[in-house]
Amino acid sequence: MKTLANVLIVVLLAACAQQPNPRSQLPLPAANRVPAKVLSAAEILAQSNPAEWRAIAAENTLVMETARGTVVLELASAFAPAHVENLKVMARAGYFDGLAITRSQDNFVVQWGDPNAEDASKRKSLGTAKATLPAEFTAAISSISDFTLLPDADGYAPEVGFSQGFAVGRDKKAGLIWPAHCYGAVGAGRDVGEETGSGAELYVVTGHAPRQLDRNISIVARVISGIDVLSVTQRGPAPMGFYEQAEMRTAITSIRVGSDLPAAEQPRFEALRTDSASFAMLVEARRNRLDTWYKRPAGYIDLCNVPLPVRVSRTIVNTH
Amino acid sequence: MKTLANVLIVVLLAACAQQPNPRSQLPLPAANRVPAKVLSAAEILAQSNPAEWRAIAAENTLVMETARGTVVLELASAFAPAHVENLKVMARAGYFDGLAITRSQDNFVVQWGDPNAEDASKRKSLGTAKATLPAEFTAAISSISDFTLLPDADGYAPEVGFSQGFAVGRDKKAGLIWPAHCYGAVGAGRDVGEETGSGAELYVVTGHAPRQLDRNISIVARVISGIDVLSVTQRGPAPMGFYEQAEMRTAITSIRVGSDLPAAEQPRFEALRTDSASFAMLVEARRNRLDTWYKRPAGYIDLCNVPLPVRVSRTIVNTH
Repeated sequence: MKTLANVLIVVLLAACAQQPNPRSQLPLPAANRVPAKVLSAAEILAQSNPAEWRAIAAENTLVMETARGTVVLELASAFAPAHVENLKVMARAGYFDGLAITRSQDNFVVQWGDPNAEDASKRKSLGTAKATLPAEFTAAISSISDFTLLPDADGYAPEVGFSQGFAVGRDKKAGLIWPAHCYGAVGAGRDVGEETGSGAELYVVTGHAPRQLDRNISIVARVISGIDVLSVTQRGPAPMGFYEQAEMRTAITSIRVGSDLPAAEQPRFEALRTDSASFAMLVEARRNRLDTWYKRPAGYIDLCNVPLPVRVSRTIVNTH
Repeated sequence: MKTLANVLIVVLLAACAQQPNPRSQLPLPAANRVPAKVLSAAEILAQSNPAEWRAIAAENTLVMETARGTVVLELASAFAPAHVENLKVMARAGYFDGLAITRSQDNFVVQWGDPNAEDASKRKSLGTAKATLPAEFTAAISSISDFTLLPDADGYAPEVGFSQGFAVGRDKKAGLIWPAHCYGAVGAGRDVGEETGSGAELYVVTGHAPRQLDRNISIVARVISGIDVLSVTQRGPAPMGFYEQAEMRTAITSIRVGSDLPAAEQPRFEALRTDSASFAMLVEARRNRLDTWYKRPAGYIDLCNVPLPVRVSRTIVNTH
């Protein structure tokens, strides 16, 4: 966790400053919707109000230590409560400690878990954790307190937007809401049966959003720090990128619930509230890039191109 | 080029077999469009007709040798003829030899060129190649011979589909067509001015498709083999992923026009024609995943989720 601040800067800037070019307020090319005031993403974040940020509770995070670095996940507690509870049981029992990153498939996912999962004689015990769980592919809209609509249409869902800090799809008629498979989303691998997932096998999206997986997998978390620890792992052999040779795997030292760590090591992140004015401005600034570099603003943004800014909490915790 | 066949298998299977699950013809869940005959992507390719594949001419490729492996690009000659011509001039003069991968930004791009590009006293000479070129962000529809419409709508363009082997957007009213920034697309970096690109700085998309760049950059190629050589490069420091330290860079040994290589080393790939019946079946099979693993087919696919299958040519060239 030593490099958490540095890692966070990477997360934040990668999300919000992808484009190299200084913006200006020169005359604008034709655009579908031009905001009254033109600010860059960085400026919008810089001028945001502290109340527009929500603290990510350490008990709603997992901290994964690997041989290549630290990854921090925010858990999807509202969407997949049973999986999240099971993950905490596994983390607290040290289930993941000594397991490994077992798969890296280009433009798709990086996966981790027990390399011996298929071998009953060698497989690590799940202890008191459950081996299978009811599917949590979607949640009832009535169970979720927030939803911020993205104005642009999406063919994968009747509505798309943001809820609980996640990019989501929603179907009001069916009364359902679900996290979308955007870059950084973490899902619970499963077999053919809907209820065969447990959280023991996890994967993160590291390519173009495979939205066809939406509503087919329980999304249990999203990476809020250290995704590059996972995304640059050497790709495994085709077709699915599993590492056949043990030496290709990256060891997982431990996965802990953030709040179980010593206070000084607990992840202290904040996420920009998706119901805030600054988030709305950020979405609009990304829908129409108005700096001089862009000759033709898109006038549109797809769900998985919207950044979800995260920063290190300004709260300094004195642990001495 | 020794591992070309192995690399190709990776490309082909990564494109066409992302899902681990055997398909079957069990009763199907509700889906928007269900084809009369249900075949998996792999089966569709296996039963394709040889005439449905087009040879990728070696003279329309670049072969990039790096310290980490070989990358093969198919050039976008129809969309960016001036850039492609300039790239060939540079390749033939050995311009790229000894340059480097200079940038890796997570969920965005990997870029290569002259690390000293900003320093006039150290910068490598472009020789007879042009330092700036007219923008080739779009091409006239009238100049392009083919277009295969994707049935699903896309907010980034009036129409989307496939042309010349590339994923493209099209605006019939404006008479314009352009390659889209899907994973693996290669663009010519430029400065603020539209005409400041030359091909000396190239980048490849290695994250969720940054479609906001469409019509703002000249796309000059797409990676058809070895993209994982680029996509797993260690990310550079934020905000933009440029390597400040030379030791983080990956050396480029050479970039050659494929047809300039000895016959035995020339890239010999074929691409599935996007106007073929097999391609149409493949698109439909991906719009609605009908194997038993999928509980809810999407009934939709976005442009950059459509695979563009490439395989090693079956033509054996005897060079002895």
